[in-house]
This record gives sequence, structure tokens and C-alpha cells, in this order.
Amino acid sequence: MNTLTRRLYAARTQQGAGAVPTPVPAHGTVPAAATRPAAAVASAADGSDPLAAYRITREPYWRTVGDEVALYEAAYAVRMPMMLKGPTGCGKTRFVEYMAWKLGKPLITVACHEDMTASDLVGRFLLDASGTRWQDGPLALAARYGAICYLDEVVEARQDTTVVIHPLTDKRRMLPLEKKGEVIEAHPDFQLVISFNPGYQSLMKDLKQSTKQRFGALDFDYPEHEVEVEIVAHESGVDRETAGKLVHIAERARNLKGHGLDEGISTRMLIHAGSLIAQGVPALSACRMALVRPITDDADMRDALDAAVTTYF
Amino acid sequence: MNTLTRRLYAARTQQGAGAVPTPVPAHGTVPAAATRPAAAVASAADGSDPLAAYRITREPYWRTVGDEVALYEAAYAVRMPMMLKGPTGCGKTRFVEYMAWKLGKPLITVACHEDMTASDLVGRFLLDASGTRWQDGPLALAARYGAICYLDEVVEARQDTTVVIHPLTDKRRMLPLEKKGEVIEAHPDFQLVISFNPGYQSLMKDLKQSTKQRFGALDFDYPEHEVEVEIVAHESGVDRETAGKLVHIAERARNLKGHGLDEGISTRMLIHAGSLIAQGVPALSACRMALVRPITDDADMRDALDAAVTTYF
Amino acid sequence: MNTLTRRLYAARTQQGAGAVPTPVPAHGTVPAAATRPAAAVASAADGSDPLAAYRITREPYWRTVGDEVALYEAAYAVRMPMMLKGPTGCGKTRFVEYMAWKLGKPLITVACHEDMTASDLVGRFLLDASGTRWQDGPLALAARYGAICYLDEVVEARQDTTVVIHPLTDKRRMLPLEKKGEVIEAHPDFQLVISFNPGYQSLMKDLKQSTKQRFGALDFDYPEHEVEVEIVAHESGVDRETAGKLVHIAERARNLKGHGLDEGISTRMLIHAGSLIAQGVPALSACRMALVRPITDDADMRDALDAAVTTYF
Amino acid sequence: MNTLTRRLYAARTQQGAGAVPTPVPAHGTVPAAATRPAAAVASAADGSDPLAAYRITREPYWRTVGDEVALYEAAYAVRMPMMLKGPTGCGKTRFVEYMAWKLGKPLITVACHEDMTASDLVGRFLLDASGTRWQDGPLALAARYGAICYLDEVVEARQDTTVVIHPLTDKRRMLPLEKKGEVIEAHPDFQLVISFNPGYQSLMKDLKQSTKQRFGALDFDYPEHEVEVEIVAHESGVDRETAGKLVHIAERARNLKGHGLDEGISTRMLIHAGSLIAQGVPALSACRMALVRPITDDADMRDALDAAVTTYF
Amino acid sequence: MNTLTRRLYAARTQQGAGAVPTPVPAHGTVPAAATRPAAAVASAADGSDPLAAYRITREPYWRTVGDEVALYEAAYAVRMPMMLKGPTGCGKTRFVEYMAWKLGKPLITVACHEDMTASDLVGRFLLDASGTRWQDGPLALAARYGAICYLDEVVEARQDTTVVIHPLTDKRRMLPLEKKGEVIEAHPDFQLVISFNPGYQSLMKDLKQSTKQRFGALDFDYPEHEVEVEIVAHESGVDRETAGKLVHIAERARNLKGHGLDEGISTRMLIHAGSLIAQGVPALSACRMALVRPITDDADMRDALDAAVTTYF
Amino acid sequence: MNTLTRRLYAARTQQGAGAVPTPVPAHGTVPAAATRPAAAVASAADGSDPLAAYRITREPYWRTVGDEVALYEAAYAVRMPMMLKGPTGCGKTRFVEYMAWKLGKPLITVACHEDMTASDLVGRFLLDASGTRWQDGPLALAARYGAICYLDEVVEARQDTTVVIHPLTDKRRMLPLEKKGEVIEAHPDFQLVISFNPGYQSLMKDLKQSTKQRFGALDFDYPEHEVEVEIVAHESGVDRETAGKLVHIAERARNLKGHGLDEGISTRMLIHAGSLIAQGVPALSACRMALVRPITDDADMRDALDAAVTTYF
Repeated sequence: MNTLTRRLYAARTQQGAGAVPTPVPAHGTVPAAATRPAAAVASAADGSDPLAAYRITREPYWRTVGDEVALYEAAYAVRMPMMLKGPTGCGKTRFVEYMAWKLGKPLITVACHEDMTASDLVGRFLLDASGTRWQDGPLALAARYGAICYLDEVVEARQDTTVVIHPLTDKRRMLPLEKKGEVIEAHPDFQLVISFNPGYQSLMKDLKQSTKQRFGALDFDYPEHEVEVEIVAHESGVDRETAGKLVHIAERARNLKGHGLDEGISTRMLIHAGSLIAQGVPALSACRMALVRPITDDADMRDALDAAVTTYF
Repeated sequence: MNTLTRRLYAARTQQGAGAVPTPVPAHGTVPAAATRPAAAVASAADGSDPLAAYRITREPYWRTVGDEVALYEAAYAVRMPMMLKGPTGCGKTRFVEYMAWKLGKPLITVACHEDMTASDLVGRFLLDASGTRWQDGPLALAARYGAICYLDEVVEARQDTTVVIHPLTDKRRMLPLEKKGEVIEAHPDFQLVISFNPGYQSLMKDLKQSTKQRFGALDFDYPEHEVEVEIVAHESGVDRETAGKLVHIAERARNLKGHGLDEGISTRMLIHAGSLIAQGVPALSACRMALVRPITDDADMRDALDAAVTTYF
Repeated sequence: MNTLTRRLYAARTQQGAGAVPTPVPAHGTVPAAATRPAAAVASAADGSDPLAAYRITREPYWRTVGDEVALYEAAYAVRMPMMLKGPTGCGKTRFVEYMAWKLGKPLITVACHEDMTASDLVGRFLLDASGTRWQDGPLALAARYGAICYLDEVVEARQDTTVVIHPLTDKRRMLPLEKKGEVIEAHPDFQLVISFNPGYQSLMKDLKQSTKQRFGALDFDYPEHEVEVEIVAHESGVDRETAGKLVHIAERARNLKGHGLDEGISTRMLIHAGSLIAQGVPALSACRMALVRPITDDADMRDALDAAVTTYF
Repeated sequence: MNTLTRRLYAARTQQGAGAVPTPVPAHGTVPAAATRPAAAVASAADGSDPLAAYRITREPYWRTVGDEVALYEAAYAVRMPMMLKGPTGCGKTRFVEYMAWKLGKPLITVACHEDMTASDLVGRFLLDASGTRWQDGPLALAARYGAICYLDEVVEARQDTTVVIHPLTDKRRMLPLEKKGEVIEAHPDFQLVISFNPGYQSLMKDLKQSTKQRFGALDFDYPEHEVEVEIVAHESGVDRETAGKLVHIAERARNLKGHGLDEGISTRMLIHAGSLIAQGVPALSACRMALVRPITDDADMRDALDAAVTTYF
Repeated sequence: MNTLTRRLYAARTQQGAGAVPTPVPAHGTVPAAATRPAAAVASAADGSDPLAAYRITREPYWRTVGDEVALYEAAYAVRMPMMLKGPTGCGKTRFVEYMAWKLGKPLITVACHEDMTASDLVGRFLLDASGTRWQDGPLALAARYGAICYLDEVVEARQDTTVVIHPLTDKRRMLPLEKKGEVIEAHPDFQLVISFNPGYQSLMKDLKQSTKQRFGALDFDYPEHEVEVEIVAHESGVDRETAGKLVHIAERARNLKGHGLDEGISTRMLIHAGSLIAQGVPALSACRMALVRPITDDADMRDALDAAVTTYF
Repeated sequence: MNTLTRRLYAARTQQGAGAVPTPVPAHGTVPAAATRPAAAVASAADGSDPLAAYRITREPYWRTVGDEVALYEAAYAVRMPMMLKGPTGCGKTRFVEYMAWKLGKPLITVACHEDMTASDLVGRFLLDASGTRWQDGPLALAARYGAICYLDEVVEARQDTTVVIHPLTDKRRMLPLEKKGEVIEAHPDFQLVISFNPGYQSLMKDLKQSTKQRFGALDFDYPEHEVEVEIVAHESGVDRETAGKLVHIAERARNLKGHGLDEGISTRMLIHAGSLIAQGVPALSACRMALVRPITDDADMRDALDAAVTTYF
């Protein structure tokens, strides 16, 4: 077993009084009212808290399987920058949300991409009626006021993005805003977290060693069978038998990874299928729509997966 | 049969009183007056409704063949992001317009292309007399006020476009406007829909697995013979016999796909040919102009298709 | 015969009273006065007509040989987007000018190139004394006020240009101005026309099938012998014998296309040569200067073409 | 002989009263006073003539050998766009200056390069105290007010530059300023001239056929022996014997073109060498410095050329 | 031994009165108060000192092993530009901080990356209410007021960055601000220092010889065993036995460099592992998280390293 | 011998009264006072002289060995553009400074790089409180007011930079400011000088022949043994015996050029080593730091060079 941690992927969201009491599926039958169960972000009214929009007010559901929570807490205690490794849709983003909630720290998430510039992280001057005005980027905001800054899929970003985090990830803990001529000393609460999917990196896209060495790392993977059944049942609203069938289908597909499939079927996709079934969609249609069609355009692979579906439904 | 759904491609547009009562061909003999039968978009006068321009006031014609409407409704109920797959001109855009009308939701369509940036979707600051002013992009507009946002041919877009939709397509349902320092929580009505043509992707242009896994998917294809005859006759104004000949020609051409033709002749092209015939153009000339010349520059292929045309006319 | 239409390439421009009564050669001995026979564009004085600069006030000469005028009229009646295909200098631009004149519609021509952006077509914000001001691009201008918009050599443009025309070329007939947050419904008079030279496209530069399928197409080619003689004589002012010799030289060169020449000698080049001869330049010099030197730098090919010239002169 | 024209490359500049009476070498011992013999551009004081800076007030020396002047005059009479072809430093630029002087037309010269944009030719909006202000580019200036516009080494420019000249080089003779929403009808005096060196084009850099076919073309080459001796003697101030030796060296080097030398030694370089000799520099040093070192870094080729020099000096 | 210098990597930070008296681990359990032990930068209140933010007020810990401090002092005495060479995480940045503190000079550090432009170093005009205002970049700031300017990983930068430092690194010691039209003569205190990791450069990314020759160079490497044990114990708070085990693991991993590992385990990583152990994390978990997972995604290599860990713990 | 000129590389700077009387090493122990021996640029107080910052007020040391000074003077007399060729650090920049001083002309030096645009040379509009304001670039400044403009390593620049100098390097001697609509006639004192290192150009980076032919060229190389010893002793402050050893080491290294070394050890590097020795650094350490470490990262080559050092010290 080369996987350090296992976690329960679920969201036993602690809802406020008067909220919908029934289980809320992943994408929820969103009520028209303003109470948004799917959102973990709150907005302060007066604006005096620059991080108000990034505070997590409801506990995201996370069932600890291994020691991942304790390890993260120890890493946060010494403000060690953290790297979360694992395949698509296995819960890395959820975990960092959970930890931010548990530690009571705001969380600023940035989805990295290859056209993102250092300025998108650090900030830029905007033109105002009275001239130029500096606007902190998400990294500067997190460093200045003390948030956990989570750079999702950092390997997608250009090098300037990864280099810009270096002074924040060693003993200096500072962020030079060269264009502004200011040096931000990181707030004591600030921590940097990055994620990436080891199956993705090519020779062209990998983190530099001088970046990797600045982080502690936690491995993530899909949950074990029983745990995943529980998650799917809980999140989608289907019974455990149906959830079990869905997990079996996923496990078959995951064995095809590298043999015609780039990635297996994730827990998130199982919850999609379950949600459709819970809406009354026939299981065969739901699985084709939520599990098979999204991940392959190849006719043979599609037929193979469809056959796997009919084995169980 | 690997095609989940079949649909009637037609536009039995519900027209207002006093509108032209005769069948309106696809490109219609556009009357000089302001009643625009071809347009499915209405503009509110007072501007109090920021999505007024995107509301669909007339029912687009759609004849359900399979379960595509029911499946889409179930997906919308749980706000599952949707991916519509299928060849060029087979009705994906029409379907999402129909569903938006049926669900009573505004529809914001964005034609994706390789020079589109994340800012084109999310928004940007504009310089004003009183300084910079934020302008929501179409994705932010849809997320803020609650529209279906349809990204057509999303695979053409650069990675930053596809990554920017991630936080809107998982449980978070939020859109960080990093340049503005704001986080939009998606309106309960918001849903994201993307389309792509599986025949197009190359190694260079494919959606990332971490994107694909966020969507449920529906397959689309050209309609079956009788259905397509009915559509062509209805849309172009020719009789069923002529429409039947046109569909036969298209079916021959579709068999050549991959053998010298990149794509077959679409339903849209058949309606073009029929419309010309209905205008009095000889069938041979109409077919050459609307079916053959647009899709091939190769002399042999052109002769083969011309011969197919003369078989029927 | 794979060529649908043949047309007389000439410009028996209808000139106003007091204009030069003698035949005006292609590039005309331009008189110093303001009456510009070569220009087909008029400017309105008061500016109340936003398309005044694009109205064609004098009939461009066009002798219909086949059914190209009737076909185009039928296509315009249903507002079918049109694609004009054919080699360099064979009259595609002239034809669309003639049709615009005949239909009484303004014509906005855009020469496409690989550095043209979608903003060059659609419009952009300009900075003004009172802030930013939107300026419609040529496509938005044509769609808003009702002109024929002609995108010359559209295959040269980047993909974003070709994708931006999609919503204008299907039933929607609309142009979203995403940066402005406005959706233009196309004026009833609006039509989109594109041209391209099938000999040019490479694997790198071809229109996408999803673009091609939106257009009806007309083929163009060089005119037949007698017709071309008449055109050259009329346009350049040389006698029919000299014009006949020039056309014979061109026909020889056209046979070399693909065997050392990328393109043959066009009608336009023959008019150049004739114009020089009409100015008293010896025929040999005129042909070398106007027919041979422009199209080849290869010594052998140049000698072969020079020899062809001396066969006739 | 595939060279149409030969010209004497010299500058018997017509100097005003009181000017230096002795022969002025190519780079002249520039006097400290304001009378600049090397400059062919005059500045008007009041600014009422927008082309004043581009008028040529002194006759550039040009000795007609063939019919190049007559041919150009005929081409200008019909406003045929012209293309001047020939190797580096053989007098193309001088010829167009001479013709502009002879025809009494202003000359606007643009040195093309691969980073030049269409805006560099056509114009752009500049930000002013009172908002944006349009500034004509050199091509718009020439078209609006009537100058000969000379695009030097046009093949270096990007495609957008070459496409932008199309509407000015056919019967339309107009320049659409799309960003400004204006269409310039070319002034009757306007003519477009381009140059290029056929030895340079690669597959990557060649003019499109649809561009080439719009121009008449004149070939240029180095002058014949006796003519070149006269030019070098006249321009540099050395005696005919020395000039003869320099021309012999150049002729040897020109035979090495393609055999280790990309280009031969041009007339301009001979005048450089002669000027140094006239300044008292030993002939060997002058030839090494002005003829050999500039064109090769290869030790063998340098030795071969040095040996050629010592054969004559 | 090809390593010139060895240094003790530690940070016996001289803390102000009232500061935390216990050993502070690398990433320290950051206290909530404002005394930031990890930061070596102080901010002046009145702003009269433009380099105040760059002065190092507390002594960074540096134990001299070889002659690196004396050599650097001699280099600074003649203001020789310096190049620090060595692998990731071996103390180059710490050394330059120590020397800046020892010499009493401000230190401006710039993390170079491939999207950094010359303007990012030199400065740019910003738009202000009263027009444009020049803002010195970090290099100009250092040259103007007299700081040590440290360009970290300079080989990542584009050529314009490296060329811009040339006039500052020869006898001229000046920095032309071409956009401003000013020439800065370097302040007598100014010195330029660059770093790079010789293992990184490829053919595509190497410093030009004309740049390298402008610098004196010092080699850095990981410290010897006993020294590294002391550093790890001191910095992380673990006992010497545990530190010794960690160093043994690192030494094993360093032998794998080039045999499946791009880089060995750095001293910084050992301090990470020690800090976790000091927080109570089991040694096995701490080593996997801080030493193994960050540097490899390869299953075999990960198992090999995990085995090395279990040898010692 | 293919080297035309030899020069003594030294800087017997003529210092003002009261200046430091002792020999000043290359990087000098910079005194805290304002008298900057290393700077050859003076600043005028009133600003009435736009070239004041570029005037050279102290004689740079240059010992003429061959005829390079006389040749340059002859070239300047006829304002022939000059090209200085030679390896890194052999004195090209010093020579042009010396000649500028000797001729009494200001010198504007531009370090070229691949991101430099034509605007960086020619000038640009800046936004001011009262609108846009033109700012001459260094080339325009030199041409307008009469300086020698020295483009260092011009081959690094993009083509637009090299094409922009064409009209300044032929008989026209003018610089069109197309963006400003102005044509600068070059001041009589203006001369253009470029440098490049023939060992550097690749197929991708070479000057165009049409550029090279516009220049006279002078070759530069490292000085002969005795001369170099004198220079090193004089510039660094070491005795002739030590300087002789340093030159011997350099000569050995220069023989390795092309056999594992891209460039040999330059005179500048010897002065570095000497300066360190003069500061009391042991010769072995000084040579490793100043001669060996900067030019190689290869262990074998480093050992070979270290051995060469120990042969002499």
C-alpha cells in the first residue's frame, strides 16, 4: 500500500436551522431560496474583513480514515507548505476545505491554468479615476491577511507562477510585490497548499525540483469499497445496494486506466449517476450519461463500459 | 446503436399574431419589418432584467424521439453540468435552446475559439470616465443572475477557459473573479452546458479528464430517415418527395465520411438546398451549390457527389 | 465541366455626366479632378446613413454567362450565407460588388489576414475624453444596419474570426458582442459572403467543416477565350488582335499551374499588359513587366514564359 | 540576358549655390553646416502641406541605361502598382527616389520588417488630452494626399501588411480604415511600389500569388563593368584605375555567390572602399575593412577574398 | 574535492528582547504576535530610506566552514559581480543574506522566471492622476541607492533580463533607463549577485558566455555529515540521534541523483521532517511526507526511499 | 594573421585633481565619495544639452597597436557605419568609448537583446497629464542631436531593430518616425556603430546581408602576450610576474575553445583574478573563483583548468 491516507468523501454539511432536512445530493435540487447548501463561502456585510468571502462557515463532511488530518495539523503548526497528490475527483479540494474549516482559517482557492500569469496571483495596478490603484491578487491577499492559499493543479501554471511562491515557502515567508515596490511579510496564519495529479505531468509539465522540495506531500486515492459505497449512498440519495453496484462499475473502469482510459471513473461521477437514479432516471440511462459518455469517445471502450453497466443493472 | 437520443430537427416556431403565416424556411425570406422569426432572443425595454436579452420567448421546434428531454430535465434538477456530443449541424445548439425555453431559463451562448481568454468568459475592467468599471463576462452574468450558459465547441478554447469553469462545476458552484477580488456564488438557476464534436479532437485538442469528469453527457447524431424527411420538408418548404431525395443524397455522403470527406452532409445543408429549390432554383444547381461545393474542393469527390445528385434529380 | 458559372470580367462603369468619355483602362489614367471612375464607393455628406460609405452608386460591369446571378439572387432571398470559390484575380470581388449594386444593398468588404482578431470584425472599446466608447467593427456594422459583409480570403483569418460568424450564419442570425454585453439581431438585409481560393488551403489553413456547412458555394474560374479577349480589349484599350495574343499567352501559362507555377496569369494581369501597350510600351516589354516578372523568380520558368511571349509578339 | 534594365548608380546631386563644389563621396565628409548633400528630403515650414517632408527637392543622379524610366512612366500613367526586384545594394531605392523626383510626386518610404503590423502602415488611435485622436500611418498618408508609397523589402512584413494593400492595388483603389470606420479613396497621384530580393524568399517568406499578381515588375541587377567603374570613381572620388580594380574584386566575389557567399560585393561597398582610399587609407586595409570583413566570418572565404584583393593592390 | 566552500546551514537568528527563547524550527510555530522570527526584512516607518524594506536587521545564522566569507568580502571590496552555483536548497540564498547583513548593505532579491521582462527589473512608467510616473524596478532601485541585488535562478530569465545587467557588470557600472532617457551611475555600494543550479541548464537555457565572464563564481554544495546533523538538530528541534538518522537517509537519496532522482534530499527537507517529528508525528510518517512524497511520483523509487527510511526508523 | 588590429586593453583613466592617486583596479575599491572612477559618463546640470549624459569627459585608456584608430577616424570622416567584430571581453566596447572621446562626440550605447523592439530604439508616445508626448529612443536621440550610437551585440535583436537602421546607413541618412509622422535627417555628427561576436551567430541569428553590406568592419581579438601582461598588471594592481602567470593560464584556456569551452578566458577575467590577488586572496582561490568557476560546469574541464592554475601558482 503506497497510499498514506484514505478519507471518506462525503459532505455531511452542517446546515442551519430551517434548512432542507432531507439528504442533499451532490449537485442538490437547488432550492430557489438564498440558503445555498452547496456553497461553503460566506460574505460579510460590512466588508471590514478582507477575507470574509473566503471563510468557511459550515463544516464540510470529511470522515477521517487514516492520519491525514493529524499530519496536516502538524504541518500547519510549523506552517510547512503542503502538496496534495492524487487522481482527478478523489477529494483533494474537499480535504483542504475541511482542514481550513477545522483550523478556522479562511481559504483562497485558485484554479491554475497555463495562461495564468504571476500578476494573476500577486496583483496588479488598475487604472482609477485618481490614477493607478494596486489590487492584491489572491496570493497577496492570503499572505497579507492570513489565509490558506490553495493553488489547484499548480502544474498547469507557467513557471512564473511557481517561482513567485518561492520566497513564501522558505524561511523568509515573504512576497515581494516588485511592481509596487513593497515586500509583504506573510501573516502568521498564512499557509500555501498546492495540488497535482501525478498521472498528468509530462516532461513538458512538471514542477521544478527546487519547487517540490519546498513542500511536504500527502497522497490521496479513491476510497476503499465499503467507504465509497457509503459516500455514494449518502451523497446521492440512492440505497446501499444501488450504490454498491455503482462502485463495482467504477472499480472495473479503474482497472482499465492506462489500457484505453486516461482516468477511471471517480467518486464524483458515481454521485452524479446516483443523483440521476434518485431523480427517477432508469439506471442504464443514468450510468451511460454520467459514467460512460463523459470519459470516452472510443466506440469499443464505450461498448465495454456499457457492457459493464448492464452486468450490474 | 450507440446513440442515446434522436431528435427532430425543426423549428415550428410559435409566432406572434400578425406574423407571416406561411412556413418559414431556415433562412427565411426575411421580411423588412421588425418581427424577426429567425431570432429567439428578446430585448426588454427598461433594462431592469440583466438577462432580458437572453430569454427565449418563442418555442423552438423540437420533436422528442428518445428520452433526451427527460434526461436533460433530470440533469437540470440536480444542476448537473451537461456535455452535448455529436457531429456538426445535427442539432445540439437547437436542443439547448429548446430546453432553455422549456425550463423557462435564459440562455447565454458563447462560441468558443482558440483565442478566447478566461477574461472573455469571466469579465474585465473597462476604463470609464470615472475610472475602471467591472464588466461581467457571459459566464459571470449567467452565474450571477441565473442563466444556462452554453459553451459551444468548448474544445476549441484554451485551457484557461476550461479551468475557469471548474469551481462552477463541482459542489462549490462558485466563480472567483480574481481580478475583482469577488467570489460569485452561482444563482440556483445557473447550469453549465458544453458541446463538442468527438470527431474533431486531436491529441493537441482534447478536454482534460479532470474537466470531462465534471459533466454528464448526451450523444447526438443525424435523425433517422423519415424524421429527417419531415424536417427538411417542413423547414424548407419543398414537398416530401423532393425532401426524400435530398435525404437520400445526404445518406450517401455520410457513408463517405472518413473516406475522403471530413464530415457528411448535415440536416442544415439539406434545408439550404430545399430552400433554394423552393425559390425556383433547378434541383441540380441547388444541390451543387448547397450540398456539394461547400464540403469538398477535391475534383474526384465533387464528381462523385454530383453523380449522386443526378441519380435522384 | 466542374465550373458552375462564367462571368465577363469587365467594368463598363456607368459614369456620370461630364465624365471622361473614352474607355478607361483598369488602372485608368487617373484624372486630377475628383470624379474617381475607379471607385465604387460614395460618401454621404450628412452622416445620417451609417452605411453611406459602403453604398455602390455606379453599376460595376458584369456580363452574366451562366446562372450565377440568378443563383445568388435566390440565395440572398433566403439570406443563405454564400461562399465564392476560385483562383486569384478571376472576379470574385467584382461579382459581389455587382450583386450588391443589383440588390441595392451596401457592401462592406474586409480583407482577411492571419493577424486579424475577432475584435477587428466585431468592434472594440476606444478611449474617449468621456471614457470608453464602443466602436462597431465592420461585421457588427453590417449586421446592425443591414449590409452585405464580404470577408475576402477568409481562410487566412484566425479561428476566432471564423467562429465569431457562426451565430450569424444559422437560424439565430445574431451577433453577441460579449465585451459590450449586447446581442445584435441581424438586420433583415444582412447577408454574409466569404471567398477563398481552393488551391491555397493547406492542412494548417482550412475552414472548419462546421463553418463550411453554413454556406452555399459558387465556383468561379477564368473566363472562356472569346469572353476574356473581349474583356481585355475593353478594359485595357488595345485592339482585339492584341488582346487575343495576350489571352493565348495566359492560357499557356495556366497550363503550367502546378508544374512550376503556383498560379497562372490572371485576367487582371492581361489588362495590366494591355494598358501598358496602349500607353505605347513595346508589347515584349509590357508582357515581361506585367505577365512574367511578377509571377516567377525561377530563371527557367521565366525563360519559358518569355519564349511564350515572343511566340505571339 | 534576363535583366531588363541597367542603371548607373550614382548621385550627381544637384547642389544649391554656395554648396561644396568638389565631388562628394557616398558618405560625404559631412560639413558641419545645415546644407545636407546626402539628404533628399525637405521640410516645409508652415505645415500646410502634409507631404512636405516627403517631397524630393534635388535631383538624385540616375543614368538611364535601358528603358526602365520609360517603363516606369508608363506604369505610373495607368497607376499600375510596381514591384522592383533585385539583389541588395543594386539601386532599387535610388531608382524609386529618382522617379518620384522626375514625376514630381512625394515619396513615402517604409522599411518593412517582420514585427511591423498593419497598424504601422494604416494608422492608429493615439490618446490625447481630449481623448483618442487618429494618426494616419504612412500608407494612409500617401493614399489620402497623393504620394508614391514605397514598401522596401515587403517580403519581410507579416501577412497582414501585404493583405492590407490589396484594395489599393486593384480597380477599387481604396483603403478601408476599419478601426476608424472610414474608407479612403486613393488620391489620383497615389501609387504603390514594393521591392524585394528574389534570392531571399524561402518557403516561409514569399509573397502570396494573390499579392504578386497585382503588380507590374522590373528587374534590377549590378551595373555592367564600365558603368560601375564610372559610378565608383564618381561617387568615391578615386581615379578610374583604382575604381576599375575595385570593380574587378567585386566581380570575383559575385562569382562566389552561392558558393560560400550569400551575396556578392555590392556597388555600395565599392564606394565605401573607394571613399576610404580617398581619405588616405591604404588600399589593402580599405578593401579588407569595406569589402571583405563585412560579408564573411569564415576564415577560408576571408582568406580567398583577401587574396583577390592583393591580386589587384 | 571540487567544492570550494562548505557552510553551516542554520539560522541562529539574533532575536530582539522578549522574543521567543526556545529554538525556532525552520517554519517555526509562528506566534500570533508581530515579532516574525522567519522574516529578515524590516520596514522603516517614515519612508525616507527607499531601501528600508530591504535592510537585514537580524543576523542570519551562518557558520563559516571554508573561506567563502573571506572570498565574498574580497569580491565585494572590488565590487566584482558574483555568481553562486549549487544544487537546490543548499543555502545560496541564506549565504547572500548573511553577507548582506555582515557588510551592512540592503539586499534586494528577485526570483527570476521565464516571463520576467527587462521592465520588471529596470522599471516602468505607471499612469497616475497627473500622467505617467516612473517606478524604479528592483535593479534600478539597487543601483540608484546602493543595495546588493540578488537575481535568484537567473538562468530562468529571458535574454533581455541578462543583457540588461551587462553595463552594470563591467567598468561602466551604469544602468541606462532607455524608456526614461536616464542613465543611472551605480551607487558605490551596489553589487550584483546571481545564482544558478548547474544541474539545470539545458542547451536551451544557459547563460551566455558574454554574461558568465562578467562574474566571479563560488561553488556551494550540501554540508558534510556532522555539520548537517548539527544544522538539522538545531533548526528542527529534534535530538542529534534523530537528526543523524535523517542525514543518513538524505545521503542515500543523494547517491540516487541521476539514477531516477533529479535531485537528492536537501537540508531544507530534513528540517521539514525533523519539525514534524518534533511536533509528535511518527518518524515514518514524517519522513514519507517530508522526504519521499515530495520528490518522486515513481512507485519503484518511492518504495526504495521508503525502505531506506525504515532502515533507520 | 587574420586580425587587423590589436589594442591595449587598459584604462589609464585621466583623473581629476584630488582623485585617488593609486592604481584603480577594474572594479575599483569604490570610494564612498561621488568621484566615480569607473564611470565615463557625466551629467550636465542645466539640461540644455540633451546629450550631456552621454559625453565622455575622461580619456579611456587605449594603447594603439595597429592602425585601428586611424582606420576608424577615416571611417568617421565619411560617416561610414562601422561594425566591430570579435570575441567576448576583448575590448570592443572600450574601443568605441575611446574613439568617441578622441573625436569629441557623445556616445549612446544600447545593449541589444531579443525582446528589444524597434520602439525601444526609435521612441514612443508616453501618456502625460496633457495627453501623449513623444519620447525619442536612443537611436532617434543620437540621430537628432549628433551622437555616435553603439548597438552592442546587435545580432541578438529582432529583425525590426536591424531594419530600422537601414535608412540611417545609406546615403539618405534619415530616420522615419512613422508613429510620429516625422522624418529625422541625421545630424552631421551622427554615426552608427554595431558590434558582434562571429562565434555566436547561428543559422537562426545572423545579420541579413542587406544589413551587413551597409557597414565597414574591424576585427578585434585578445591582445598579444606582452601587451596583455601589461594590461593585467596595470588594471588589477598585481606585479608583472603574477600578471604573466595569469596570462599564461588564459592562453592555455583559449586553446581549449571549441574543445569543451565555448569561449576562452578573457582579459576582463584576468583583471578580476588579479584584483582578488591584490586584495590578499590566495592566487589559487582567486583563479578558481574568477577564471575557472565562471566558465565551466563540467567536472573534467574544471579539473583540467584547476590543474592549469596549479601549474603556475
